[in-house]
Amino acid sequence: SLVAPRHTDCNAVLKGLQPVFQEQGMTETIHNWEDHGYLATYINKNGSFSNLRIYPHGLVLVDLQSHSDDMKGRDEIDHLLNKIEEKMKELFHSSIKRVKRLPAIVRGEAIDRYWPTADGRLVEYDIDEVVYDEESPYQNIKILHSKQFGNILILSGDVNLAESDLAYTQAIMGSGKEDYTGKEVLILGGGDGGILYEIVKLKPKMVTMVEISFQQMTIHFNNTAYSSFYVLDNLKGECYQVLIEDCVPVLKRYAKEGRMFDYVINDLTAVPISTSPEEDSTWEFLRLILDLSMKVLKHDGKYFTQGNCINLTEALTLYEEQLGRLYCPVEFSKETVCVPSYMELWVFYAIWKTRTEV
Amino acid sequence: SLVAPRHTDCNAVLKGLQPVFQEQGMTETIHNWEDHGYLATYINKNGSFSNLRIYPHGLVLVDLQSHSDDMKGRDEIDHLLNKIEEKMKELFHSSIKRVKRLPAIVRGEAIDRYWPTADGRLVEYDIDEVVYDEESPYQNIKILHSKQFGNILILSGDVNLAESDLAYTQAIMGSGKEDYTGKEVLILGGGDGGILYEIVKLKPKMVTMVEISFQQMTIHFNNTAYSSFYVLDNLKGECYQVLIEDCVPVLKRYAKEGRMFDYVINDLTAVPISTSPEEDSTWEFLRLILDLSMKVLKHDGKYFTQGNCINLTEALTLYEEQLGRLYCPVEFSKETVCVPSYMELWVFYAIWKTRTEV
Repeated sequence: SLVAPRHTDCNAVLKGLQPVFQEQGMTETIHNWEDHGYLATYINKNGSFSNLRIYPHGLVLVDLQSHSDDMKGRDEIDHLLNKIEEKMKELFHSSIKRVKRLPAIVRGEAIDRYWPTADGRLVEYDIDEVVYDEESPYQNIKILHSKQFGNILILSGDVNLAESDLAYTQAIMGSGKEDYTGKEVLILGGGDGGILYEIVKLKPKMVTMVEISFQQMTIHFNNTAYSSFYVLDNLKGECYQVLIEDCVPVLKRYAKEGRMFDYVINDLTAVPISTSPEEDSTWEFLRLILDLSMKVLKHDGKYFTQGNCINLTEALTLYEEQLGRLYCPVEFSKETVCVPSYMELWVFYAIWKTRTEV
Repeated sequence: SLVAPRHTDCNAVLKGLQPVFQEQGMTETIHNWEDHGYLATYINKNGSFSNLRIYPHGLVLVDLQSHSDDMKGRDEIDHLLNKIEEKMKELFHSSIKRVKRLPAIVRGEAIDRYWPTADGRLVEYDIDEVVYDEESPYQNIKILHSKQFGNILILSGDVNLAESDLAYTQAIMGSGKEDYTGKEVLILGGGDGGILYEIVKLKPKMVTMVEISFQQMTIHFNNTAYSSFYVLDNLKGECYQVLIEDCVPVLKRYAKEGRMFDYVINDLTAVPISTSPEEDSTWEFLRLILDLSMKVLKHDGKYFTQGNCINLTEALTLYEEQLGRLYCPVEFSKETVCVPSYMELWVFYAIWKTRTEV
């Protein structure tokens, strides 16, 4: 919570607000930096405390920390903040440029509501239940229930997909502009099952899905407790098969056998965020998958994949540079889509082999 | 930022972490509650400070506040947090259940990035520019530029509409299922111009828009600096007119004259959040608008309006109850839509007069 008047006397703010805290029976400790203003710490017998930080450039920050999150505690906090605001307005009138209160940040509870966006912004989700939380050999797998988005799959802290996110699945399938009827489709990753579920409805000839994380799949596919995610009874059906394998050897085998696909959908991972040299191996892996995928893609086939958040322009540019370094020339288009549970716009790519004119 | 081990000795945490802060040349003040754990405050000469709050139930919270937001300051903070995390892991190994760092909260800057959702969640926007910020006689009007959503119109602190939000305009027009050709349309509010802009494209007979806030309109309509919002050169065209008036007397006049519309689109305001008795007048106003709108709606006409965030079930239920208290019987349907810049799912209503069977 913050109150921000400009060009005011630090000492006047301190003297003005002291009674408000003292009325609450709080014990005061003051630090005076002289040239950096004041920090007053007010300690309550019940374990809560408050920081009043007064900056000489005219910014006053009030932070309250309390363990109790019952309504009584919240009411008391609101009451205190109201009193501070009143007092500040009484003292400084219209010289107060802005007053802003932020919602309380809840930390250390069983339910963690904060899952920052790919571009590093703090966002709070309306999580009300931890449905699943386990370490797999590859990653931490969480399923958290959001009141508005339904179950959300969170892999190693990244929001992966929620029940609200059909827009993601549609975008990575080409946004309804492709005809999958009678086609050969290869899905890399896609452990939540959404892409497979949607494509099978479109009467393809055969969909092969290669997913390394058996655990991730079993959560969604075999346990009715998570049946709110897409459910398959079987890893093999009339027009689909699921291989629980690392996709690299599978791709190499297909390339060697000359097996070709109309569509390759890479749902393995987002474009790496870091563009530091230590991430070289990640980019190499990404190029390896791309090269192998192009080898098993028919000359008129299409490769679909997610990029990343639209704000990570540097990472997206680097990705597009990789596309110029494949064994064969390719062209690409991209599309920006709103995936509800992401709270940021997401970029998707369509890539195809450059047609050589005869 | 927080580190959360469970069932550990408060004193051991304090003793373990003290050297980390002292190495930074920070001055320590300790408060010991005995039964509520410790608060250690570490003060830096440059004006920054840190709180280390150790709770007896095994929660350790570390907060760092610093004025400088240059990269050097951020690196120093990361460095300190890394050291704390290392030390905690050294001391408590696998008994640490969870470690979580939240993105820094930036307060008191010219650009405010925090615009909580209608259901009260803390969300950070990627705002990079304040385009407009003025008090009108009716409300505070801000236009802030978001990297991903484009310009965002914020009225009295509520995110109203962004350039990314065609989904909002489409939803309040009936999600593409209506035929506006040759129809009489009345828009209440809609000061951003989006609805008018979209409907005019659909060859209606006449669109009448009634917007009280002249200032809000002029921002969008006449100033090329904000031309990224929908722009009209004129308040009157071949198939539309804009009345800068309070809609209540206009509706009363139309009702008296017997003027009827095929569509009434109410874009005045969201359903009131508060359901407290003090808000009675807001609900009465809402019913007044609804009643008057029904009076000018043809027997086979449709009334469209926004509801509110899907999580505010109580407010939405109360709204639906109001629909049973109008002068004529009505039926309604609702739809939930993802409006990109809202960061929460939004409910829209379609309302029509109950057809009396002959």
